[in-house]
Amino acid sequence: MRIAIDAMGGDHAPASTVEGALAAAKEWNDIEVILVGDEGVLAPLLSERPANLTIHHAGEKIEATDEPVKAVRRKKDASMVVAGRLVREGQADAMISAGNTGALMTTGLLVVGRMAGIERPALAPMIPTIDGKGMLALDLGANMDAKPEHLAQYALMGSIYRQKVHGIEKPRVGLLNVGTEAMKGNELTKQAYPLIEQQPIDFVGNVEARDVLAGVCDVLVCDGFSGNIMLKSLEGTAGSLFSMLKKEFTSSLKNKLAAAVLMPSLRNLKKIMDYKEHGGAPLLGLSGLVVKGHGSSDGEAMKNAVRQARIALKSNLIQSIGDEVSKHTEVSDL
Amino acid sequence: MRIAIDAMGGDHAPASTVEGALAAAKEWNDIEVILVGDEGVLAPLLSERPANLTIHHAGEKIEATDEPVKAVRRKKDASMVVAGRLVREGQADAMISAGNTGALMTTGLLVVGRMAGIERPALAPMIPTIDGKGMLALDLGANMDAKPEHLAQYALMGSIYRQKVHGIEKPRVGLLNVGTEAMKGNELTKQAYPLIEQQPIDFVGNVEARDVLAGVCDVLVCDGFSGNIMLKSLEGTAGSLFSMLKKEFTSSLKNKLAAAVLMPSLRNLKKIMDYKEHGGAPLLGLSGLVVKGHGSSDGEAMKNAVRQARIALKSNLIQSIGDEVSKHTEVSDL
Repeated sequence: MRIAIDAMGGDHAPASTVEGALAAAKEWNDIEVILVGDEGVLAPLLSERPANLTIHHAGEKIEATDEPVKAVRRKKDASMVVAGRLVREGQADAMISAGNTGALMTTGLLVVGRMAGIERPALAPMIPTIDGKGMLALDLGANMDAKPEHLAQYALMGSIYRQKVHGIEKPRVGLLNVGTEAMKGNELTKQAYPLIEQQPIDFVGNVEARDVLAGVCDVLVCDGFSGNIMLKSLEGTAGSLFSMLKKEFTSSLKNKLAAAVLMPSLRNLKKIMDYKEHGGAPLLGLSGLVVKGHGSSDGEAMKNAVRQARIALKSNLIQSIGDEVSKHTEVSDL
Repeated sequence: MRIAIDAMGGDHAPASTVEGALAAAKEWNDIEVILVGDEGVLAPLLSERPANLTIHHAGEKIEATDEPVKAVRRKKDASMVVAGRLVREGQADAMISAGNTGALMTTGLLVVGRMAGIERPALAPMIPTIDGKGMLALDLGANMDAKPEHLAQYALMGSIYRQKVHGIEKPRVGLLNVGTEAMKGNELTKQAYPLIEQQPIDFVGNVEARDVLAGVCDVLVCDGFSGNIMLKSLEGTAGSLFSMLKKEFTSSLKNKLAAAVLMPSLRNLKKIMDYKEHGGAPLLGLSGLVVKGHGSSDGEAMKNAVRQARIALKSNLIQSIGDEVSKHTEVSDL
């Protein structure tokens, strides 16, 4: 299993990517880690050179501020693009990048390529739930608009991912909607509902945004726009409440003393709400495995992304999605 | 100013509606309150009979569980429908109901009627912000799908409402979106943006869901589906966090004692987040004034809804919206 890491992508790269790659190569000897980036920069950072870690030189890099499509088209020697090419050409089985999200989605589409039968790849991060187990939500931002048949494919891909990578035997799949009754929603969700019902998955029906945090399903299907609105509302509300709590709790000496006692509990809560802790997000529906790490990933987070990619590869994720999609491609012809 | 109250609508009706009507009639002698409902039920509940309070008999009522369109069509003598008819026929200037939301929207459309030039009336409740000032959001549920020109009309109507009813000289109007840059969003918001820019309002551009609670605008424009996702996420997150806090804060005697000190602060926070306290929601874009009270409205809430309707009538809200819409109807022809 060869896993290419975009060594130059992410706020803390290349220190973070080198650290993560090294730790991963040392922990798992059934993988080969390929650090893709400027050899002159990377080599001096490697304190050790395990046999299963190599550097693949790439002279350019995509910046966080680059316009995604232009950057991917023009910077052919950028570390992210080269990592994508390694996957497309079969020289790597997976790629991981914590770089420019738009550019990574473009690399997925234009360099790695779509899986046959999939119209729209979807970005599928874990979002927080109060039981700490998290929920896989897709699409969260790869495409702003979706058609009903896209949502049906998201449902199928998300279910297979949770099965294969997280070991959930029968993932509960829900559709983000404004009410739980089958006929609720806008034109998109009303038309998607019967298509999702036809998928070989455990479809639990519509899920209201207010029940997401309670963890009522394992996979949440949504279009990129609504998903973003939901996640940002969730983050924004949690953030606002925590800052309001902080203000109230430091407003008097009495409050400060009481709050100090409760601080461990508050920190615990805050940690649950920090969805960034839930690791990298796969870009599902491509012909190879692509994992998006958070921009702020440190070495530990990069290592976790490798762990995730390794499990996905061991469980034949991409092959399984391909098999199911080809069995159910009638869905995309509706 | 004659204000009709659907006396049979709401969880606590008719006790709540009678109480609210009585208090309102006593407080404002420039209005005439018309209680619409079963005279045999209402008359005994009226402890007093101020000269500016009358009962208008209506023998039927719409239940919370009734299918909206069917109910409005069939129950021609339902209190809600009769109140709508009073507005349409000029026997009342406004109507208020805390009954079945779908039925009230249907009554607005089919009985009161749309304003000339308006394609889609919008439900415009206040949603909470941490500064306690609240934000008018529309559409929140009258229509699940919207076209770009509908969003432009929502922007105009919301701005006029905030000016006229809340006295905000230059309301800041924002468009709910996934990023703040002008070109962000789905097809709907991308096309709506330039149309909203053409309105005679203070358009502050796109607003992200995470910034809503911070009160970055006075009017938030959204389609009914996204708006619902946002509001339910906000409610759900706040609700979940408060229950998690409660659990953590009662998990030990030490925590309980500390939490007791902080209880007033917590209650204060919870109150801000309880958007139900922000009063009734106008249904904008109709040829008469229709205000939706919360289903759980008590007498005080009903009186507040009358206060709102009175200000709207005094400020010529409907006339002002009509004037502006007729000036800018080219928008709906795009």
